[in-house]
Amino acid sequence: KINGERLWDSLMDMAKIGPGVAGGNNRQTLTDDDAEGRILFQQWCEKAGMTMGVDQMGTMFARRDGTDPDALPVYVGSHLDTQPTGGKYDGVLGVLGGLEIIRTLNDLDIKTKHPIVVTNWTNEEGTRFAPAMLASGVFAGMHDKEWAYDRVDADGLKFGEELGRVGWKGDEEVGARKMHAFFELHIEQGPILEAEGKDIGVVTHGQGLWWLQVTLTGKESHTGSTPMNMRVNAGLGMARITELVHQIAMDNQPGAVGAIGHCDVYPNSRNVIPGKVVFTIDFRSPDQAKLDGMKARLEAEAPKIAADLGLGFEIEDVGHFDPVTFDDGCVAAVRNAAERLGYSHMNLISGAGHDACWINRVAPTAMIMCPCVDGLSHNEAEEISLEWAAAGTNVLFHAVVETAEI
Amino acid sequence: KINGERLWDSLMDMAKIGPGVAGGNNRQTLTDDDAEGRILFQQWCEKAGMTMGVDQMGTMFARRDGTDPDALPVYVGSHLDTQPTGGKYDGVLGVLGGLEIIRTLNDLDIKTKHPIVVTNWTNEEGTRFAPAMLASGVFAGMHDKEWAYDRVDADGLKFGEELGRVGWKGDEEVGARKMHAFFELHIEQGPILEAEGKDIGVVTHGQGLWWLQVTLTGKESHTGSTPMNMRVNAGLGMARITELVHQIAMDNQPGAVGAIGHCDVYPNSRNVIPGKVVFTIDFRSPDQAKLDGMKARLEAEAPKIAADLGLGFEIEDVGHFDPVTFDDGCVAAVRNAAERLGYSHMNLISGAGHDACWINRVAPTAMIMCPCVDGLSHNEAEEISLEWAAAGTNVLFHAVVETAEI
Ligand SMILES: NC(=O)NCCC(=O)O
Ligand SMILES: NC(=O)NCCC(=O)O
Repeated sequence: KINGERLWDSLMDMAKIGPGVAGGNNRQTLTDDDAEGRILFQQWCEKAGMTMGVDQMGTMFARRDGTDPDALPVYVGSHLDTQPTGGKYDGVLGVLGGLEIIRTLNDLDIKTKHPIVVTNWTNEEGTRFAPAMLASGVFAGMHDKEWAYDRVDADGLKFGEELGRVGWKGDEEVGARKMHAFFELHIEQGPILEAEGKDIGVVTHGQGLWWLQVTLTGKESHTGSTPMNMRVNAGLGMARITELVHQIAMDNQPGAVGAIGHCDVYPNSRNVIPGKVVFTIDFRSPDQAKLDGMKARLEAEAPKIAADLGLGFEIEDVGHFDPVTFDDGCVAAVRNAAERLGYSHMNLISGAGHDACWINRVAPTAMIMCPCVDGLSHNEAEEISLEWAAAGTNVLFHAVVETAEI
Repeated sequence: KINGERLWDSLMDMAKIGPGVAGGNNRQTLTDDDAEGRILFQQWCEKAGMTMGVDQMGTMFARRDGTDPDALPVYVGSHLDTQPTGGKYDGVLGVLGGLEIIRTLNDLDIKTKHPIVVTNWTNEEGTRFAPAMLASGVFAGMHDKEWAYDRVDADGLKFGEELGRVGWKGDEEVGARKMHAFFELHIEQGPILEAEGKDIGVVTHGQGLWWLQVTLTGKESHTGSTPMNMRVNAGLGMARITELVHQIAMDNQPGAVGAIGHCDVYPNSRNVIPGKVVFTIDFRSPDQAKLDGMKARLEAEAPKIAADLGLGFEIEDVGHFDPVTFDDGCVAAVRNAAERLGYSHMNLISGAGHDACWINRVAPTAMIMCPCVDGLSHNEAEEISLEWAAAGTNVLFHAVVETAEI
C-alpha cells in the first residue's frame, strides 16, 4: 500500500503555490505560479531517482527505469494547472498520486519490467487557452503543434510565447513516445460516488464535448437616448441564447448537459447598449447522437434569435471531442485492483474531459476516480479526504504494477 | 456669430488625446489621458484671458470677468471625460463650445455685465465610477463629497485617490459657487432632430433614471460533471433578468427604455458554471410614475426568477435621478436665440442624463441640443457636422449673452 500521509503532505505543499482567494488554487497554465509548481514537482521526481524529459508542448515526463530495456513504459499522470478559482486536487492528485507510487516502489525496492513514467500534461484546464487538454491533444495527433502555439489568452498572449517565457518549452518531439498503457487517477468532480457510497469509480467511458464560441454583433449606442425600436442589443441576444442552451440540455435529459461559463461584453459600460458579446457554449453527452443533435439544434435556432434582433452571428468550434470508450484490458486492471484491495467500486462515465480521453486514441488507457465532497469541483471549496485519495492511489499502484509487471 | 472653423479645430485637437481604437476616444475620467485633456483646456482658457478655479471634486471653472462686480456669473459647460469607446463630441462640444463663445466675445471686444464661467464637470460618464454626473451631483448637494471619494472602479481604485493621483484635486469647496444661470450645449445622442430635419433642440425636460446593480450568487461547479438538476447557475439567472428588463421596457412604451450594459461573470471560465454575476440595469423615463413602476416591477419579479433557480439575490441603487423640468426663463432664452438666428428648432426631452439635470436644482438651467448622425452616441463612430456644431454654439452664444447682459 502507498503512504497516504506522504501523498497528502505533497498535495498540501503543492497547494501553497498559486493560492486562490478562498482556500483553493489559481495556478493557471504557463503562469509564473505554474512554472514554480513544475520546479517543485521536478525536484521531487529527481529526489525519487527519476529522470525528467520535457516535450515541445511543455509536458513533463519523469521516468523510473524498468528491468527490460526493450519494454515500453507504463504512463501515469494528469495535470498540475488549475482553474482561476480551482481546487487543490483536480489534476494534482493524478500527478502526485503517480509520484507516490514511485516513492512506494522505491521504499519496497520493487523493480518493474516496464519503465514507469509520471506525466504532467500542459494546459489541461483550457481556461487561459482554449481548448482544454491541449498538450495531450497534440500528443495524440488531434491538433497541430504550431496551431497550439498560436492559441491566445484573454490578453492576446500566445501559448507558444508564454511556454518559452516560463522556461518550459522542451526539445522532445511531441507524441514521439510510445506507451505500453496510460492510467489517470482523478477526482470525480461529480456527485455519484459519494451518493452511492463507493470508494472507487472504474471509468469505462467519457462524455463527448462541444465548445462553441459565439460572437454576436449589435450596435453600441446610448441606453438613455436610443429608442427601444432602434436598438441592436447584443446582450439581449446572449440572454436568449443562454436560455436556448439550457432548454436544449433539458430536452436531452438524461445524459446531457449544457451551459455558458464564459462571456465578454463590449464595451461593458452601464450606459451603453452592448455592441458585441463573445461567449462559449459547453455541450456534453456520452451519447454521440445526442451530442451532435444538441449542436445541430443550437446551430439551427441561435442564428434565428440573432436575426430577429438584427444581430450579426458567428460561431466557431473552440474545442471538441467525441465520447470515449476506454480500453477493456486497462479498465479490467483497475477493477481487479479495486477488487483485490477490497474497495467498494462501480462503473462510471466521466463527466469531464481528461488527458486520458486523448491518450486513449494512441495507447491502451483507463481512469480511476475517487469521490469529492458534494461533487463539487472547479470551485475553491473542492474537497476530498485523505482516505479517498489513498484508496484511489492504492488502486493506481496495483493496476500499474500489474501492467508494468514485476 | 462664433467661428465654426476654430471650434472644429479645437474639437479635433482635443480628440487627439486618449484616442480610441476606431476613430473615437477613450479618455475616461481621472485617467492620465483625462489629466492631459484638462491641461490642454486650461492652456486654451488662459490664452483666452480667463482665470481657472478647481474644486475638491476636480471640476474646472474658467472665468471671464464681467463689468458688474456684484453680478453672479452665467455658467456654461459640460464634460471632457468619455466612454471607453466614446465619440469625439459627447460632452466635449459643450465645453469647447463654451470656450468658443469666450473667444468670440474677445474677438468682438464685447464685455458682459455678468461674468461668464466655462465649466468641465468631473466624471459625467459614470463608466469608470458610478454614478454618472458625479461631480455636478455633489455640487448640487445630491451626494456627499466623502461618499463620492469612496466610489471604486473595476480595479478597486477609489475616485478620491485617483483624483489626487492625476493632480486635479482642487481647494475650492464643492457647491460654494452661486450661479445666475447655467446653459449646457450637447449633442442629442438620439435620432429625433436628424429625423425631423431640425437644427436645434430646445430641451424642456430630461428623463429620470434608475441604475440598479444586481448580484446573483450561485455555485461554481464543473460544466461537464455537474448534473443539470444540481446546478445553481448565476448566468442563467442573469439571462432571465435581462429578458425581464427588456419586457418591462416594452410594456411601458412609449416613453420608457431599459437595458443591461454592464456585467461581470465569475469566474468566467468556459468549463465553470457561473457562481456569481454582477450586472447593472438601466431604466429611464420622462414620466415619474412609469419610472418608479418599472423599478417596482423589477424588484417584484427578479427575486422570484432568482429564487426559482436557487440563486442568492441582492440589489443596490448605484445611480438615480428624477425626471427634470428645466427653467422656463432659460428655456425661453434658448428658443429666442434659435428664432433670432433663423435656425429651425423643436422642443426635446433629453434621453440621457446631463450635468445640467443636477445643476437645474440649484440654478436656473437649460440645455441646447444639436443633431448627431443616425442618433448614434456612446460609440466611436459618433459623428456631427461642423455646421451643426456651429449652429448649436451660436445659439449658446446668443442665449448666454442675452442672460449675461451687455
Ligand atoms: N477535468 C477537468 O476539469 N478538465 C477540464 C476539461 C473539461 O472541461 O472537462
Ligand atoms: N450624456 C451622457 O451620455 N451622460 C451619461 C449619463 C447617462 O447615462 O445618461
